[in-house]
Amino acid sequence: MSRYKCIISYDGNQFSGYQVQPNKRTVQSEFEYALQKMHKGEQIKIISSGRTDATVHALGQVVHFDSPLSIPVEGWRKALNSMLPEDIRVRSVDTVEPDFHARFDVKAKEYRYRLLISDESCVFKRQYTYHYPYPLNLHAMKEAAFSLAGTHDFTSFCASKTEVQDKVRTIYQIKMEKQGDELILSFIGNGFLYNMVRIIVGTLLEVGNGKRDAKEMESILTAKNRSLAGKTAPGQGLYLWQVFYEEWQK
Amino acid sequence: MSRYKCIISYDGNQFSGYQVQPNKRTVQSEFEYALQKMHKGEQIKIISSGRTDATVHALGQVVHFDSPLSIPVEGWRKALNSMLPEDIRVRSVDTVEPDFHARFDVKAKEYRYRLLISDESCVFKRQYTYHYPYPLNLHAMKEAAFSLAGTHDFTSFCASKTEVQDKVRTIYQIKMEKQGDELILSFIGNGFLYNMVRIIVGTLLEVGNGKRDAKEMESILTAKNRSLAGKTAPGQGLYLWQVFYEEWQK
Repeated sequence: MSRYKCIISYDGNQFSGYQVQPNKRTVQSEFEYALQKMHKGEQIKIISSGRTDATVHALGQVVHFDSPLSIPVEGWRKALNSMLPEDIRVRSVDTVEPDFHARFDVKAKEYRYRLLISDESCVFKRQYTYHYPYPLNLHAMKEAAFSLAGTHDFTSFCASKTEVQDKVRTIYQIKMEKQGDELILSFIGNGFLYNMVRIIVGTLLEVGNGKRDAKEMESILTAKNRSLAGKTAPGQGLYLWQVFYEEWQK
Repeated sequence: MSRYKCIISYDGNQFSGYQVQPNKRTVQSEFEYALQKMHKGEQIKIISSGRTDATVHALGQVVHFDSPLSIPVEGWRKALNSMLPEDIRVRSVDTVEPDFHARFDVKAKEYRYRLLISDESCVFKRQYTYHYPYPLNLHAMKEAAFSLAGTHDFTSFCASKTEVQDKVRTIYQIKMEKQGDELILSFIGNGFLYNMVRIIVGTLLEVGNGKRDAKEMESILTAKNRSLAGKTAPGQGLYLWQVFYEEWQK
């Protein structure tokens, strides 16, 4: 029996999120179904670094599973890709120690959010970006983002329907970069609460359009009250970009 | 009654092509349905620069229609976009002379073909590029492309099921450009036969991978025989990029 770690990407549009749900098409169920076909009907469970919501994409989600099959890693990658639907791709497979755990061993994650900031929307990017056609004060957004970096209780930036008790997280780095007609926001942290990145992006947009002042961020954090932060930005702009299993270093 | 010219873009994936077909979702039928809603149920026919096939995209397709409604052009654009499905967008609307004709007045068209030439496929580009993971000799492809530029009888590069008699067309310019992990082929010509760009791309790929010699292109043209050219490249890499109503000048 060997343990395998896979880096996978998926297009979130046609999935009801990552995690198995009855009668829904999910990334986990499609992946486990592919494994089942490779194991003559035997069910093989996969563990991911964490779930993602409906329409949210992943460039570098990580999953692990155990298998008795002895196949070289490149063979695993090809076999899985031949079994999987086109909107999930296995980018790499590695053998790992039997105690490697895709969720418990996570040291940091990077999420990216793609904003299409042109006047015109784009049919080719509609499922992969959030179109925001209004003027944005990037300077104010950077100032606001700066106050979120570091270790904080992010209760105000967490969807209220969550079971997690400890809402203290550390954001190591927030970057904003214009790339053509897009504004890419990157967040690297030791963990992210439910909807945290999407609520942060929604709030930063309200700073960018002048509805809020950049200085509000600190009082929003202190209040620990979700209703003080901005709207949750849509899922289709969000990407789980990469998962780090070693301490993150700039 | 005024005549309007619209530049529209569409994501070809969810359409059975441009042209109306019974019980199929097409760009023309969606557009005419949007116009019908704006005209209290009256049917308004649109004329395009030409049809595109299933899965083929358009960045700058052009259509015209006549309407008794007096709406400013920006109002037309917004109204149409509010009525149209998300995978068709009106980029601009202009009033034109009553004798403007979106098909008959075409002077030139540009098609582009996007090849994803990385080893790995990409879930986010699978519907917008053709993934070609094998090594390509770009120099040989350029040489082959060069022999296609100019005025030729393109019978060998035209799908056999076509009604067009005169298969002489002029390609003004063929360009190949690497952009990141993509190879973009651009074709500007006075007109293109059925599947012509896709057959040219398919043949150029066979030159690029060494299956054919670049020098074969001339004998393929001379033979006027479709079976001598290469495979038809898939539709999802092809874009009707722009339509010119003035003589094309480099």
